[in-house]
Amino acid sequence: MKTKGKIAVVAPASRLTPETADKVTALARRLYGSDAPEIFFHPQCFLSAGHFAGSDAERSAAFLDVANDGAYGAVWFARGGYGSCRLEDRIFSNLNENARQKTYLGYSDMGNLLARLYAVGAGQPVHGPMPQDINRSGGDAAIARALAWLVEGDRQSLEPAAQSSQKVAAFNLTILSHLIGTPWQPDLSDHIIMVEEVSEYHYRIDRAFFTVTSNENIRRAAGIMLGRCSDIPENEVAFGADEEAICRYWCQRSGIPYLGRADIGHDAGNRVVPFGGFLTA
Amino acid sequence: MKTKGKIAVVAPASRLTPETADKVTALARRLYGSDAPEIFFHPQCFLSAGHFAGSDAERSAAFLDVANDGAYGAVWFARGGYGSCRLEDRIFSNLNENARQKTYLGYSDMGNLLARLYAVGAGQPVHGPMPQDINRSGGDAAIARALAWLVEGDRQSLEPAAQSSQKVAAFNLTILSHLIGTPWQPDLSDHIIMVEEVSEYHYRIDRAFFTVTSNENIRRAAGIMLGRCSDIPENEVAFGADEEAICRYWCQRSGIPYLGRADIGHDAGNRVVPFGGFLTA
Repeated sequence: MKTKGKIAVVAPASRLTPETADKVTALARRLYGSDAPEIFFHPQCFLSAGHFAGSDAERSAAFLDVANDGAYGAVWFARGGYGSCRLEDRIFSNLNENARQKTYLGYSDMGNLLARLYAVGAGQPVHGPMPQDINRSGGDAAIARALAWLVEGDRQSLEPAAQSSQKVAAFNLTILSHLIGTPWQPDLSDHIIMVEEVSEYHYRIDRAFFTVTSNENIRRAAGIMLGRCSDIPENEVAFGADEEAICRYWCQRSGIPYLGRADIGHDAGNRVVPFGGFLTA
Repeated sequence: MKTKGKIAVVAPASRLTPETADKVTALARRLYGSDAPEIFFHPQCFLSAGHFAGSDAERSAAFLDVANDGAYGAVWFARGGYGSCRLEDRIFSNLNENARQKTYLGYSDMGNLLARLYAVGAGQPVHGPMPQDINRSGGDAAIARALAWLVEGDRQSLEPAAQSSQKVAAFNLTILSHLIGTPWQPDLSDHIIMVEEVSEYHYRIDRAFFTVTSNENIRRAAGIMLGRCSDIPENEVAFGADEEAICRYWCQRSGIPYLGRADIGHDAGNRVVPFGGFLTA
């Protein structure tokens, strides 16, 4: 669906720089001219508190502000990093009717919020590029893809498996493994679950798949697709299997269909996956 | 309880060197002379397959061999590393009456097996030193403590909170976080849960506590005690809270009592924690 209204950016994990925000605003103007969407960067994006873009209370309040504000058709998460699992539990029971109408776009650490919003049925969580991606090599294409989805509902932005009525969801593998067995874990039965990873050793990828594929609800999924696993560090002892062999092993062991590769990852090529699927979007 | 019979060593994760096995045997002879326990190092300990001490099938078969053999009063896990979550599921339904009488001693990655054995009620899982620890600085003391527990049932080996009728369990934090939401997760309601960590960034410790303390069963625990967290790498941005502040935060947030520090960790001082508690031992 096309986003009605402005786009609000908040940073539930790590901080965005004002320069990055300016680059995204400038790119939107170059792409859309006078039709460029209004992108509101909440001042919370630029706060700093240790590891985080402000305290847990500040990040929670900013998210709830824009989620509940009818002026915004979409909440666009600024970037990943770490911290979205620390948002206050109360916000999820305080989402209003406006919050239930909107798109929430992000990935990586933001998977915590996509999951919990999906679990409580609030709006449409979407796995895809974030403002911080503009700093990647080729990053303008990622931002253009995200905006094309938010502004135009452009099917070209979609991961191919998301272009049907099939239920889909996408996560960073480590984030998904940490959601398993918590009240933040959404019901993913009958979904194609896409996972991607960055900067984790093969043995850690293997261990995360153990957790994910051992879970009863995940075992009711339609299947798993493997996104890109980038910047895998060299282990002291070679693991003896690459990420696709690992994914196949755990899918076979758990009886979950392995459905091949997904066009998502921590890179500029990361395509858009609307939770639940395209036709519900 | 004193171990009746021999001690069998297997390696469900990474490989042990024959030199390390010899050192442990020699130390047992120095400590106990002609009363030294017989320690059988299963040949599987010395196998090598990529990251592991033999294939999943070989490691599974060796474990089942010694667990089901009445000649052994204890199964002592050789070392951690990675791989015990890959043991075949079938072994846990094939444990016989002998397997239900014995002690299983280890920690770190072996927490996967301690957990699953506890979940199926097989024998007594015990968190404590392993043969590989003899290579640590001061490691002889760790081995002596483990043997004193296995051979003599010596209370001096116990972590202080484990010296009562209180139910207790102990885990590496990352391993416990990966067990949450899987069929390997044991019922830890009413237990004091001790956790320790090694070589993980503060933000990862925080994230693991999110998972653990968000889980419904863990929220029914008697409390959490924090063991030592060693070799924490320096993060690009300081996290802003140390491991004890992190543990307190998540305990408070989840309503789980924080019960102070535990005398366990990835070091020679690691004391023994029999799952369920001392009086059940």
